Amino acid sequence: MARCSSCFPEISVRKPERTPTGETILAQRLATSDDTFSQDFAALLAGKREASVDVDAAVRDILEDVRSHGDAAVLRYTERFDRLAATSMAELTVSADEIAAAVAAVPAETLAALTLARDRIASHHRRQMPEDDRYTDAIGVELGSRWTAIESVGLYVPGGTASYPSSVLMNAVPAKVAGVERIAMVVPSPDGVLNPLVLAAAHLAGVEEIYRIGGAQAVAALAFGTETIPAVSKIVGPGNAFVAAAKRRVFGTVGIDMIAGPSEILVVADGENDPDWIAADLLSQAEHDESAQSILITDDAGFATAVEGALERQLARLPRVEVAGASWRDFGAVILVDDMAEAPALVDAIAPEHLELAVADPEALFVRIRNAGAAFLGRYTPEAIGDYIGGSNHVLPTARSARFSSGLSVLDFVKRTSVLRCTAESLRELGPAAIALAEAEGLSAHGRSVAQRLNL
Amino acid sequence: MARCSSCFPEISVRKPERTPTGETILAQRLATSDDTFSQDFAALLAGKREASVDVDAAVRDILEDVRSHGDAAVLRYTERFDRLAATSMAELTVSADEIAAAVAAVPAETLAALTLARDRIASHHRRQMPEDDRYTDAIGVELGSRWTAIESVGLYVPGGTASYPSSVLMNAVPAKVAGVERIAMVVPSPDGVLNPLVLAAAHLAGVEEIYRIGGAQAVAALAFGTETIPAVSKIVGPGNAFVAAAKRRVFGTVGIDMIAGPSEILVVADGENDPDWIAADLLSQAEHDESAQSILITDDAGFATAVEGALERQLARLPRVEVAGASWRDFGAVILVDDMAEAPALVDAIAPEHLELAVADPEALFVRIRNAGAAFLGRYTPEAIGDYIGGSNHVLPTARSARFSSGLSVLDFVKRTSVLRCTAESLRELGPAAIALAEAEGLSAHGRSVAQRLNL
Repeated sequence: MARCSSCFPEISVRKPERTPTGETILAQRLATSDDTFSQDFAALLAGKREASVDVDAAVRDILEDVRSHGDAAVLRYTERFDRLAATSMAELTVSADEIAAAVAAVPAETLAALTLARDRIASHHRRQMPEDDRYTDAIGVELGSRWTAIESVGLYVPGGTASYPSSVLMNAVPAKVAGVERIAMVVPSPDGVLNPLVLAAAHLAGVEEIYRIGGAQAVAALAFGTETIPAVSKIVGPGNAFVAAAKRRVFGTVGIDMIAGPSEILVVADGENDPDWIAADLLSQAEHDESAQSILITDDAGFATAVEGALERQLARLPRVEVAGASWRDFGAVILVDDMAEAPALVDAIAPEHLELAVADPEALFVRIRNAGAAFLGRYTPEAIGDYIGGSNHVLPTARSARFSSGLSVLDFVKRTSVLRCTAESLRELGPAAIALAEAEGLSAHGRSVAQRLNL
Repeated sequence: MARCSSCFPEISVRKPERTPTGETILAQRLATSDDTFSQDFAALLAGKREASVDVDAAVRDILEDVRSHGDAAVLRYTERFDRLAATSMAELTVSADEIAAAVAAVPAETLAALTLARDRIASHHRRQMPEDDRYTDAIGVELGSRWTAIESVGLYVPGGTASYPSSVLMNAVPAKVAGVERIAMVVPSPDGVLNPLVLAAAHLAGVEEIYRIGGAQAVAALAFGTETIPAVSKIVGPGNAFVAAAKRRVFGTVGIDMIAGPSEILVVADGENDPDWIAADLLSQAEHDESAQSILITDDAGFATAVEGALERQLARLPRVEVAGASWRDFGAVILVDDMAEAPALVDAIAPEHLELAVADPEALFVRIRNAGAAFLGRYTPEAIGDYIGGSNHVLPTARSARFSSGLSVLDFVKRTSVLRCTAESLRELGPAAIALAEAEGLSAHGRSVAQRLNL
């Protein structure tokens, strides 16, 4: 694809580098038959992949400042951190003309791909919309659950190299499907540079309110509101350490989505796969981030060696060789099992963000597995399909949190109100038990509120 | 109901006190017709009701200690904080005999009420179970969402006065309905005292693994595991400032439920209600906690005054008069509207935990309201019915978080894995768009993983 440096400034500055000749980059190898396997596997699970940067004190000050001084504080921090001097928030508000110009600047093929992605994401997420439930039970009590969309959502989009149009779609489209009325997007433009693909994706997703701000100051503006930006009810989207710390701190004032960690893939592959395909899949996560993790589970030692070789050959040709090489060397792993029947327990313990089952009968394996953010079944479903165009969401639980949480969905943009309605008769049926429990808990006013209505 | 001090130790120590004669306890009054209404209402919304106790440093140390020293640390903290000396965790593990004895000690009427509550909660929550979805789209891509139960859940139950059997049911029953295999319950027993009702409720909910431990040390034991207590995947249940701080800190290592604040009720009532009924409903929240908040919205000034009078008369007779009086005086409010049509916008801004619509046509009002944890419709549905026996959950979003979150449900005990499966043919359809987007984002290994399979 043709790329010019004004359209893709963050990308074009990245220099392809070659891996130093002769240096072999290998991930660690484990085998369930080793005596030390339980320790080795426990160490792999316990491994920390994120350097914890302590920005909490700085973030606290920024939040407080924006809460007290609104737009003025946002302008000040934007000048300091993004080297972008503006005298009013109007200058930091992306205009309809700018969006139109960005859309026009995107190559037709890319725009078509983004449009296809949007449509497939929308179509899949529409099936996730929960249905209201309302019913009357045997004694005449009406019960129910009613779902409504969150009124307003803030969408954080990172600037710089992690400014991905696909992530804009993955966050904004489910919100739109849920019926969120207002989506306010923030995206920093360091030195004034904004990725037009991000604006094009926002446009395709129907997002029109966009501010060129980022960092903790943007999170604060969304959470507390400023003279220009009305406060939202929930903030979603990935960001750097400042953004993550700010989201943690404003949680409660507003809702937040998960705090995502570095990406992960676990590929379970038998010896019948093309080693080049599996190596490419492992590299597709490794290239994200030096802290990303790619793991292969296989029952074929020869295949494992073939994948390692293929991976090294492909690595040498990758533009992001340094990132992918560091990730594979520091966090990659090959786990050799005696029998594929051992795989499900290992998968559940790892609880990967992405799980590929490249085996003859992936469904048979999948039903025995519980913990995974997203599953990619069979030999023809590379994980990258899910990142972009499959239709399912690519915002998924990392760092073993698939044990207890799910990927982003329409459910993250709606909330439920439970409904109860008693008649005089059904209250008479239920009342005495409620009074008994209230008395047992020493909460007599609870009991009185029921007793009053029953003349008790 | 008959109560003895050994069965209900926490309750029996509470001394009923009378409100000092002649002192009038009134909540603040607002009226939408006042010139100052917007400021008054904004101040009401912004009011902080929780004293923030900074226990974070102490909690951090306790967590680290339990993570490093396991059972030994738990024993040490239990001796220090609960004045309960035990030489092994076995002594802090509640036996089947103890549970049976507790069940036997509960009066038959209370046990019957708890059993009815359990059955109604189970029956309502079974309807919340999400269904798997699996389908093949027009180009042959299989997509889906698969739901599985969280493997293990820790249930925190407070000791002392907030040790509510109803909360045990509200947390444990949905987990059981979801299919959670292991529920580990922790409940502190300061000075060795344990509320038998809590054990009875656990028994009715099918919870068998119970430890007499509490505080941050119990949260740490559940999150990290000890020699005796295997780690769980998620921790739910209310607790004091130490428990809340500990849950915030272990979030990520395990899942947690919401951090609940003081309880709230908002009653929208027209002048056709019995003032005594509405006063009782307002008091049923006020008696929970001095920081609880009860608000009345009405279009009838005379009715408002009648409710205030009724409330004061009932208050004087309440065992928990001091708590309820302080809550009503400090945080209570009566909002007079000119027309009930003004109510929905006020309700949405308040986003109450509990919303009562005591009007002639509650449904007509309810459809115009978006933000509420639970709605109680009509004149015969006091909120206390939902606390105990209605069947819906009483763990609900507080402090305006109903704008973006929902009450506890079966969904909190399951997680979703998204599923994708391409065939060689459907990959050929989608591949080029995925490659185009990967290239546009500068992630060439993503593109390669697709291209390899298509011989591109």
